[in-house]
Amino acid sequence: MRTFKVTLEYDGTDYHGWQTQPNVATIQGEVEKALRQIIGATTHVIGAGRTDAGVHAQGQVASFSSDTELSLSILCRALNSTLPADIVVTAVEEAPTGFDACRDAVNKTYRYTILNRPSPSALDRRYCLWVPSPLHREAMGEALSHILGEHDFTSFRAAGCTARTSSRTVSGALLTAEADSLRVEVTADGFLKNMMRILVGTLLEVGKGRMTPVHVKEILAARDRSRAGKTLPPQGLCLMEVRYPL
Amino acid sequence: MRTFKVTLEYDGTDYHGWQTQPNVATIQGEVEKALRQIIGATTHVIGAGRTDAGVHAQGQVASFSSDTELSLSILCRALNSTLPADIVVTAVEEAPTGFDACRDAVNKTYRYTILNRPSPSALDRRYCLWVPSPLHREAMGEALSHILGEHDFTSFRAAGCTARTSSRTVSGALLTAEADSLRVEVTADGFLKNMMRILVGTLLEVGKGRMTPVHVKEILAARDRSRAGKTLPPQGLCLMEVRYPL
Repeated sequence: MRTFKVTLEYDGTDYHGWQTQPNVATIQGEVEKALRQIIGATTHVIGAGRTDAGVHAQGQVASFSSDTELSLSILCRALNSTLPADIVVTAVEEAPTGFDACRDAVNKTYRYTILNRPSPSALDRRYCLWVPSPLHREAMGEALSHILGEHDFTSFRAAGCTARTSSRTVSGALLTAEADSLRVEVTADGFLKNMMRILVGTLLEVGKGRMTPVHVKEILAARDRSRAGKTLPPQGLCLMEVRYPL
Repeated sequence: MRTFKVTLEYDGTDYHGWQTQPNVATIQGEVEKALRQIIGATTHVIGAGRTDAGVHAQGQVASFSSDTELSLSILCRALNSTLPADIVVTAVEEAPTGFDACRDAVNKTYRYTILNRPSPSALDRRYCLWVPSPLHREAMGEALSHILGEHDFTSFRAAGCTARTSSRTVSGALLTAEADSLRVEVTADGFLKNMMRILVGTLLEVGKGRMTPVHVKEILAARDRSRAGKTLPPQGLCLMEVRYPL
């Protein structure tokens, strides 16, 4: 039995998220279907991050075990010619036996993109949230810095979250701007359900002047979802990278 | 009668190009339909560049005349709430009487994007041409420099081109790279039918080592379409900017 590590890029627009569900198209479902066609056996695929419906990935990682004798490059090409065009395998590697893309992940980076200009975008409309009103970028950046380190993220956790603990360690939190695009990039050892979308929803409150940066600190301490901002829509969110021990 | 100048961004994937044609969706047709709904009168819209089916725009410019009394900002918002999401008006200005977006244009810039990596892209698949084989970027850049200045572009002109002359002046020609993306940006006083797509198709021959940079000079001099490379598909092409006299 060989263990494989695959890196995936996908446009989540037309999928009901990562995880297989009955009667709807999901990323996991499409990858498992493609493997079934290529390998001829049912293969269970484990994803590092269970991205929600409409969320994208540039660097999702998945693992599976199989006794296929196909070479890595042939497996990669076979997957890309079998998968729909909005799901792409960018790398296939052989991993140590027992490698689990979810359990073994050290940290993940997500990016949320806001288009901040008077008119929406035709070309990037699937990959950003359009916010026409001017935003105080410095205040947003300052607010974001308060989530660095280990915190209880209960205030930034959706009601249906099944994680056992709500403590997460954020090792990177950066707001960058390129022309009219604002990008919030957060690296953490784990993300609670909707954590990024609630966090950036709260940063928007700061950007619009309805909250001050220090409010984010207070909201964290309050451990109360009702204190934080709205859950933003999924299309601005992208899983950028998943890291593993060397 | 007032004259308007509108700047448009669009995703050309689902359109049969700029120009109105019977029974198919076009950008011009959608803009004219939106104006008819907003202004209540038939309005003829003139575009600076007649982009082909599947070609995109970040800065297409169009002009029209109307006796509407709507303010510029209301007209802009009305257009964006009437147009489909893949066509966006990024600016509406009032222009001098008689302004014609096509005739008055000084020059235009087009960009062709090539994704040069082993795997295709899920996220950018609508906006680039995927070329998996490695390309000699320096040779492509050198080849591109030969088109600078005034030349007869007969070799880079599609059979159906109706332009009266085939002489064009290229004032800018640049190849840039960002990670796996190669971008060919050309600024000229005008573009013949498929000129960019044939030009970049020829650069690809150079990039793959099947032609040398100096071949581009010879192909220009030959005035023979059969000497140049293939016409590349439309999705990599985008009309970036149209410039007018101050």
